[in-house]
Amino acid sequence: MPRLITVAAAQLGPIQRADSRGSVVARMLKLMEDAARERADLIVYPELALTTFFPRWYLEDRSQAEPWFESCMPGPETLPLFERARALGMAMSFGYAEATPVGQHFNSSVLVAATGQIVGKYRKIHLPGHVEHDPERTHQHLEKRYFEPGDLGFPVWNCLGGLVGMAICNDRRWPETWRVMGLQGVELVVLGFNTPSVNSQKAGEGLAERMFHHRLSLQAGAYQNATWVVAVAKAGVEDGHHLMGGTMIVDPEGRIVAELDHEADGLLVRTIDLDDTRFGKETIFDFKRHRRIEHYGLITKRTGVGAPLGKGGPEL
Amino acid sequence: MPRLITVAAAQLGPIQRADSRGSVVARMLKLMEDAARERADLIVYPELALTTFFPRWYLEDRSQAEPWFESCMPGPETLPLFERARALGMAMSFGYAEATPVGQHFNSSVLVAATGQIVGKYRKIHLPGHVEHDPERTHQHLEKRYFEPGDLGFPVWNCLGGLVGMAICNDRRWPETWRVMGLQGVELVVLGFNTPSVNSQKAGEGLAERMFHHRLSLQAGAYQNATWVVAVAKAGVEDGHHLMGGTMIVDPEGRIVAELDHEADGLLVRTIDLDDTRFGKETIFDFKRHRRIEHYGLITKRTGVGAPLGKGGPEL
Repeated sequence: MPRLITVAAAQLGPIQRADSRGSVVARMLKLMEDAARERADLIVYPELALTTFFPRWYLEDRSQAEPWFESCMPGPETLPLFERARALGMAMSFGYAEATPVGQHFNSSVLVAATGQIVGKYRKIHLPGHVEHDPERTHQHLEKRYFEPGDLGFPVWNCLGGLVGMAICNDRRWPETWRVMGLQGVELVVLGFNTPSVNSQKAGEGLAERMFHHRLSLQAGAYQNATWVVAVAKAGVEDGHHLMGGTMIVDPEGRIVAELDHEADGLLVRTIDLDDTRFGKETIFDFKRHRRIEHYGLITKRTGVGAPLGKGGPEL
Repeated sequence: MPRLITVAAAQLGPIQRADSRGSVVARMLKLMEDAARERADLIVYPELALTTFFPRWYLEDRSQAEPWFESCMPGPETLPLFERARALGMAMSFGYAEATPVGQHFNSSVLVAATGQIVGKYRKIHLPGHVEHDPERTHQHLEKRYFEPGDLGFPVWNCLGGLVGMAICNDRRWPETWRVMGLQGVELVVLGFNTPSVNSQKAGEGLAERMFHHRLSLQAGAYQNATWVVAVAKAGVEDGHHLMGGTMIVDPEGRIVAELDHEADGLLVRTIDLDDTRFGKETIFDFKRHRRIEHYGLITKRTGVGAPLGKGGPEL
């Protein structure tokens, strides 16, 4: 029997530095109403959905970044999202900059059930970029300055009759992200991103190759763990800085089943069957039969590159 | 300064059950001479290069498979490959069925330096398929019957002025394969395969999707570890069973730079720069700066899928 859910990828166009939280939440509510008309069970917004992608700016005094952070969730400005989603019976996920009561800062996302209850929280683990101003880059990417690496792992939650996980942006390039969720049986990964269309360390790379790497990472993660993926961009030009689009839904065979072709606010709605994950999980990626963890030790023993293990020699 | 080497992917067309070792070695030598004319520094042959893909046949008495195995390497029939490669000053890698003196059986490959010395041996870790005859499949895939899982890990060797690793066929679908080599700084992975063009458990899947998964796995492994890949097929119809082609060279950005478009004996020769791996290894995939092994524990703790870790609840 199929386990059908209707997912809405809710891409946001650019958010300028001067835009108020209220104006952004109004745009998100508009997308939510549109998704409701298409009977969505779940709406997924991008990373840092409430603000501009502020890690592009270097602030010598880090505390000046505080206005971009949320100190409670829901807070007064985000509560309308929770209330409207609950009224519509729609689950939701979105990303935001999180400040904790003890002064920590994370690049986070929440998974909110149709009841309005926060089911899960994720804090971005693979922070790209750097800590200090880097004059050699075409632009700054200071996620390592403004955020700490996530401290909650990659949990998977029971939600919407399936197993749902979250990841954020650069996490998608790391197979470890997908595998840790795959080992919990994940059936749907929701993933928001804000990806500059220019590589700050390789200006000639070009948008086409950036998009190729984006798709490759999502498709490999989906295929190798037999999971659905809903990946949602914040896109377009924010204060002169271009973020690429590429909002898409990928099936458990790694095929792109739908992709937005613009960089403005917009929805991609599809009904997906969580049971489509079963074939992969039961055959070629039946981990229990095929994985050989006795040979994977370096993955958790070494952080960086170490000496090669091959000894060679005629005794072989 | 670039570190250029010229690699030759030496695809083999089909090998019938009735074909002698001598006839196969003659074909391999012909490809080697062709590669020498193109000044190849390294020639890479496929998995099980010396025989037909015999795991497609169920033999109740396993010992009847013994003639397909090599009990020494080089042996009398493979010695001409070693001698000619040494005379030409060419390194080489090929796959074969290995029987050890103590009665073990592996799906193995060797890396042979231009001096003729075996530098490294790899024994396939991710064996696909099954152990007993399975009447529900369109054809049998009995690698788990005829081979034990490899016991040598995924070493990387100093060879040809770079860091070279080996993998075999189904290993390419597992990100762990690539990452364990990536953590040793691998710059070139050589990988042979024999891949049936029909999924024995999903006849309708089709060749195009099989080829898509093949490319996706190679491209993701290359990109996410910033390594060159030379992947080499045994292709064509062996005793009525079709193996797909797809011999290709993939660069450290995950781009396919060359691909054979036939299923017969044939060469793909390219000069590659091992220093092209540096950009990826020093920026987005600088493991030391970006990996967070404290959150990867499940990868080596769990073999199969276990309970989801997400607890949920309003305290979040």
